[in-house]
Amino acid sequence: MIAKKMVKYVEGNSVIRAMFEEGKNMAVKYGAENVYDFSLGNPSVEPPVKVKETIKNVLDAEKPNKIHGYMSNAGYEEVREKIAESLNKKHGTSLATKNIIMTVGAAGGLNVILKTLIDPGDEVMVIAPYFVEYDSYIANYDGVVVRVNPNPPTFLPNLTELKEKLTPKTKAIIVNTPNNPTGVIYSEEVIKEMAAILTEKEKEFGTDIYMIADEPYRELAFDGAKVPYLTNYYHNAVVGYSYSKSLSLPGERIGYLVIPDSVSDSENVITAATIANRILGFVNAPSLIQLAVKECLDEATDIEAYDKNRKLLYEGLTKLGFEAVKPEGAFYLWVKAPDGDDKAFSAKAKEFNILIVPGTSFAGPGYVRIAYCVDYDMIKRALVAFEKLAKSYNLI
Amino acid sequence: MIAKKMVKYVEGNSVIRAMFEEGKNMAVKYGAENVYDFSLGNPSVEPPVKVKETIKNVLDAEKPNKIHGYMSNAGYEEVREKIAESLNKKHGTSLATKNIIMTVGAAGGLNVILKTLIDPGDEVMVIAPYFVEYDSYIANYDGVVVRVNPNPPTFLPNLTELKEKLTPKTKAIIVNTPNNPTGVIYSEEVIKEMAAILTEKEKEFGTDIYMIADEPYRELAFDGAKVPYLTNYYHNAVVGYSYSKSLSLPGERIGYLVIPDSVSDSENVITAATIANRILGFVNAPSLIQLAVKECLDEATDIEAYDKNRKLLYEGLTKLGFEAVKPEGAFYLWVKAPDGDDKAFSAKAKEFNILIVPGTSFAGPGYVRIAYCVDYDMIKRALVAFEKLAKSYNLI
Repeated sequence: MIAKKMVKYVEGNSVIRAMFEEGKNMAVKYGAENVYDFSLGNPSVEPPVKVKETIKNVLDAEKPNKIHGYMSNAGYEEVREKIAESLNKKHGTSLATKNIIMTVGAAGGLNVILKTLIDPGDEVMVIAPYFVEYDSYIANYDGVVVRVNPNPPTFLPNLTELKEKLTPKTKAIIVNTPNNPTGVIYSEEVIKEMAAILTEKEKEFGTDIYMIADEPYRELAFDGAKVPYLTNYYHNAVVGYSYSKSLSLPGERIGYLVIPDSVSDSENVITAATIANRILGFVNAPSLIQLAVKECLDEATDIEAYDKNRKLLYEGLTKLGFEAVKPEGAFYLWVKAPDGDDKAFSAKAKEFNILIVPGTSFAGPGYVRIAYCVDYDMIKRALVAFEKLAKSYNLI
Repeated sequence: MIAKKMVKYVEGNSVIRAMFEEGKNMAVKYGAENVYDFSLGNPSVEPPVKVKETIKNVLDAEKPNKIHGYMSNAGYEEVREKIAESLNKKHGTSLATKNIIMTVGAAGGLNVILKTLIDPGDEVMVIAPYFVEYDSYIANYDGVVVRVNPNPPTFLPNLTELKEKLTPKTKAIIVNTPNNPTGVIYSEEVIKEMAAILTEKEKEFGTDIYMIADEPYRELAFDGAKVPYLTNYYHNAVVGYSYSKSLSLPGERIGYLVIPDSVSDSENVITAATIANRILGFVNAPSLIQLAVKECLDEATDIEAYDKNRKLLYEGLTKLGFEAVKPEGAFYLWVKAPDGDDKAFSAKAKEFNILIVPGTSFAGPGYVRIAYCVDYDMIKRALVAFEKLAKSYNLI
């Protein structure tokens, strides 16, 4: 028998699997080109060419036992040093090698920092809508999820509610900007206000409230939008980064944690995070790909491709009468269900071979997430189907 | 402040770090060639040449978004299928694709299966001496460690004690053969007896007792020794494998779990393990290296090199009067502290620039672990120092 703690996950999983199977069956039934799958956040843009060249170069230039061997649980020093330098240049930070811990993607990094900080019963705040996998990560350490409700139409955090829900038990708040699923970027003003609230509450309670920035979408910002670097605004900010989207390497599981010296108890937090990386079973971030990303820190994904998709889809859908948040970053469009029922809307969309995810799956009911990290031509074809969907809701 | 749960780890860590720093300082002080570091289980043999070629071939032959993209949380189907076939051929098993879950090394795999099976308070049995990192893994899920004491001079499991310590709360037993730290391989007879005891106790208690085989050293067996494949002997056996030693890829974090259909509640165990892989933050085993090992399933590490080291060290030390367990597998020599004090013995060895690990660190006091996954010539040089050590104990 599996653990009782796992039963609910297994039960929930059958629903997801059913959806996945249905999608595959639809592709067989109608032809892959006639099914419009907007359900997954899997980068459609290829990794920069330099990634492939670099992996080959590393294989030729370095000794095999270095390329594939154990190193410190925090990662190769030379990789961490170059990342620290690169961040300092980009964001004006003062990070050193020791402030960087290489992780098995951002999901690995989030688990490491939560293991580091959270005791059973500690509260971790999340801002809805959000990637609800956070709930599982927090539950891994018996933390308590405290949700700040969605704040339409801007979907910026409701700072009044956020402030009210901070308690002496609040150990951390997860901040995800550019945001999945809304595509919203929190402005500098918002971050400053949030930092002021957290600082005030830390003083009031005599506690530390760590801000955990989940930043897989940092580089995906459109129209020159700036994404504030949170450690510059709040003393207790820790950053979890991933190359999954910025270098289109989601399968490689490569990212890092930034734990600045400004963080309370920073030396112990760094040591504990390095140990957590080990005892959670990650041990270290994959070695070859660590050495490869070190040489690709200035590479960028093809943001233009995502931007083209964004414009085509946003303009197409709003013309059809749908209401959507104009995405500033990431590769998601957050669209209002015309009658407020996101599950029914997703089900109706499926009748036109459009696969989208109900906002309820992101603790954001009444909206749906459309992932536009897909082929441009698929969006063009899909717009014909969206038109039928719009008609079925009498939008046009 | 870090989590209370992490404090003991951070405190313990400072000791390890001090040892590591001391080793580095010794290398500077005496010259690297005059320091004999036998403390780490890091493969000294290079990966098979085919690994490098294969990685390059994969990079050239496959599309980047496949090589580096998301796949099922259980891994690429084609990789799992080939591994299942390979295992069936080697061990006469009847495994299918679904029975294989690719993991972030064996440490990742152990955490995944423990998360899958263990609720707070469940007992997990370990057989001392053992890799005490198991304690941390078990603690991650609030399991209770139940130790079977060391059984000198053979260091095979004490089956009488094992049987006595099984309770209705025993959810799993971790079995590691070839063994770290002793180098002992459990014979078919021992495995059969152990399986019979577990089966008897399952019936008596009306419970499932899962056997978790931790098998990073499976391929490191000397003199043609056979390592029984545990799923062939016990219905509730699950295997955690790693390519860290067999292909010398410890930094790549690549391995797999085998969950056969014979296991109780197998469908749910497989589903839950796949979910655990995701929610613990691994998401999936690193993608490029998955595709590479698929083509290297018949490759083998240079066992001869380890065997040469084994013979030189075992014969050299026994000639000097030390008592040691003759290793049948892995790359560790388990040596008795002449006066029974393993910590003092390790400290004394350090005076002769020999770095070895006290057995206390493996719940096996009175012995030390000497990892001979090192350069052959270093062992030759070290034997001169070991001679001085033997004299200091009046062994010669």
